[in-house]
Amino acid sequence: MTPDQQTEDQIAALDVADPLAGFRARYEQPEGLIYLDGNSLGLMPKAARTRMARVVEQEWGQSLIRGWNDHDWIGAPLRVGDMIAGLIGAEAGEVIVADSTSANLYKLAVAAMQARPDRKVVLSEPGDFPTDLYMLEGVVRTMGQGRRLELRQGAEIKAALNADVAVLVLCHAHYKTGAIRDMARLTAAAHAVGALVIWDLSHSAGVLEVDLNGCDADLAVGCGYKYLNGGPGAPAFLFVARRHQDSLVSPLSGWMGHAAPFTFRDDYQPAGGIARFACGTPPVLGVSALEVGVGIAAEAGAKAIRAKTAALTDLFIRRVEAGPAAAELTLVSPREASARGGNVSFRHPDGYAIVQAMIARGVIGDFRDPDIARFGFSPLPLSFAQVARAADLLGEVVSQGLYDRPEYRQRARVT
Amino acid sequence: MTPDQQTEDQIAALDVADPLAGFRARYEQPEGLIYLDGNSLGLMPKAARTRMARVVEQEWGQSLIRGWNDHDWIGAPLRVGDMIAGLIGAEAGEVIVADSTSANLYKLAVAAMQARPDRKVVLSEPGDFPTDLYMLEGVVRTMGQGRRLELRQGAEIKAALNADVAVLVLCHAHYKTGAIRDMARLTAAAHAVGALVIWDLSHSAGVLEVDLNGCDADLAVGCGYKYLNGGPGAPAFLFVARRHQDSLVSPLSGWMGHAAPFTFRDDYQPAGGIARFACGTPPVLGVSALEVGVGIAAEAGAKAIRAKTAALTDLFIRRVEAGPAAAELTLVSPREASARGGNVSFRHPDGYAIVQAMIARGVIGDFRDPDIARFGFSPLPLSFAQVARAADLLGEVVSQGLYDRPEYRQRARVT
Repeated sequence: MTPDQQTEDQIAALDVADPLAGFRARYEQPEGLIYLDGNSLGLMPKAARTRMARVVEQEWGQSLIRGWNDHDWIGAPLRVGDMIAGLIGAEAGEVIVADSTSANLYKLAVAAMQARPDRKVVLSEPGDFPTDLYMLEGVVRTMGQGRRLELRQGAEIKAALNADVAVLVLCHAHYKTGAIRDMARLTAAAHAVGALVIWDLSHSAGVLEVDLNGCDADLAVGCGYKYLNGGPGAPAFLFVARRHQDSLVSPLSGWMGHAAPFTFRDDYQPAGGIARFACGTPPVLGVSALEVGVGIAAEAGAKAIRAKTAALTDLFIRRVEAGPAAAELTLVSPREASARGGNVSFRHPDGYAIVQAMIARGVIGDFRDPDIARFGFSPLPLSFAQVARAADLLGEVVSQGLYDRPEYRQRARVT
Repeated sequence: MTPDQQTEDQIAALDVADPLAGFRARYEQPEGLIYLDGNSLGLMPKAARTRMARVVEQEWGQSLIRGWNDHDWIGAPLRVGDMIAGLIGAEAGEVIVADSTSANLYKLAVAAMQARPDRKVVLSEPGDFPTDLYMLEGVVRTMGQGRRLELRQGAEIKAALNADVAVLVLCHAHYKTGAIRDMARLTAAAHAVGALVIWDLSHSAGVLEVDLNGCDADLAVGCGYKYLNGGPGAPAFLFVARRHQDSLVSPLSGWMGHAAPFTFRDDYQPAGGIARFACGTPPVLGVSALEVGVGIAAEAGAKAIRAKTAALTDLFIRRVEAGPAAAELTLVSPREASARGGNVSFRHPDGYAIVQAMIARGVIGDFRDPDIARFGFSPLPLSFAQVARAADLLGEVVSQGLYDRPEYRQRARVT
């Protein structure tokens, strides 16, 4: 046994010493399941059940239209935004919950382009989360006039920053590999040429300690249904640094971002502050579920969350690489915990079938084209014991070829 | 007693004869309340309670990421869209549930402008639902290059249709007065000059019999939380006539509208058909609640719904105008039922206080600036007896000056 093959007792001791251990019981964990897909859809906080029953039966069913005032539905996007702010290094009043991550990216990218009217380029990276790139295509297609999306890989990004770049759009933690970008350095490099930066925090919020203001960040978007445990298709969030709030205008200038939405004037006057980045009526059911998930993360705090993310992913990598399948699996995530988010991904030509074989044995991860078996480590619900068992099972499935069955090769509609 | 002051027995007979009477019990009706604000937020269908408990506890809590396939979350936007299609004269595959009404209007307006690249004008009407105008401001601000929003009142709209108009945007039923536009005639007039038309069906779907295809309509958007009873901030819908689907591209070109969203390619390839107008991950909780509301309306059918809307609003108008406050209240809704949607609005200088006094007495309507007391008649949950009592109370509150108290003049944050 190598030092990386800890005994059951040693693993149990990690759980005993875990300062966040008490949070595990706050999530519904289906019987017999080890869920390593919180990066796609986070587990349900148990309190979401009662919260949703209340918002449906009492708030909607009984208060009806009065709910906007009586249950402060109208304040929910800013209230939950403030809670998220504490997890990502933003101040109260810099974050709002609204729409989808995709729509929020569109809003901020257009607003950023309009704030740099003489610049034609949106710069991003190939292989970043695809919907971000698709939305940026939509941004330049809508704005026209020579605006274009340029994609540069990794180290070439800095070289591509020039006076024609209006905005740089990057994922903070990569959706496939979990690799973390240096937010401070890239933000400074963009600022040096007069460009703005939009950070996609979808794979960061709730799993890392993000310091937007410490990095002098301009703009950010992020997802509610991954590590914030907001429920399937939860509303997303966006961040606008206070210094930019009054000079940027959302292209999706809907009534909820109006200075006086209930006066029903014909002309648009943007609200002061972050509220102007709201668009339509807030999705009350979705925001309510999200508030539960965010509330638990806020209680745990980003610092403790980040430490446990590092510890869980370290354990998984070390144990897989000390196990029987080490030679067959290639780690594509950074080996250094400080450079890595909540995802640990291994490359294997039969990645898809391996993930299916794991699912059949009660460990849910997911697959990303072309050959990546991805495992996501939500720090609050997971125990070290679960992670160790998952690593052992992966070793077993791969080394014994248990994935090599036709039913594991059949592709589902959504993977 | 005039013929318009029917006796209690006569009113009761209307309820007995109502072919939709059985639907009333399908909605949660708070004790002691007559709810005439279904045009702002529809009542909760009782079945929403169990449906939401199931989607939260079973689908999210137990199935987790597998819910996209196992509970067909991924198919929900098109499935519920097809149900809505049947209520608005569209075919299956022409309607999708997505985003907010505001965002959907933006998508279709940009797509329509891009389909008419040589034309600079979006034509709409002052006083239409304000978020529509705000969004259209956003459309022309984003697209630039001389594009502009022109507003023309009522009869001047036809005169303003010319070869520079790319798209005409109108509400089918007016949010303040309930007045219905002649969809067929205005669509034809727009087509005659080569323009497209976007209809906002927010105050039509679920309360009127809309015939989009019969009117040769191009595009439409609509709201899920009003007469479709989808819950607070429910997702909205949009319609694209089949003949336009493959030539229009959404500016919000997110992954859910991609031809192959789960291959995670870098470049956007729009899906065939209506699916390309989806953007981000569908809001599963919201779509699930909406499906319940839409399902009941689909069961009742648009023809029967429309007939009861006419009968309820007729009764309300006749009874108010035959009552003690007739001289003080000015009807601003069309008197002809065929020209009117689900709203009946009366003008009174103390409109705000009157609405508050009514609410204090258990009849919820709402107020719209500057002086309009608006009452919305959701045909499925309401009885003729409720409508008669509400009319009597309005007469009493106004004629006896019961509204003239300071607490009724204090403005709430959301009205």
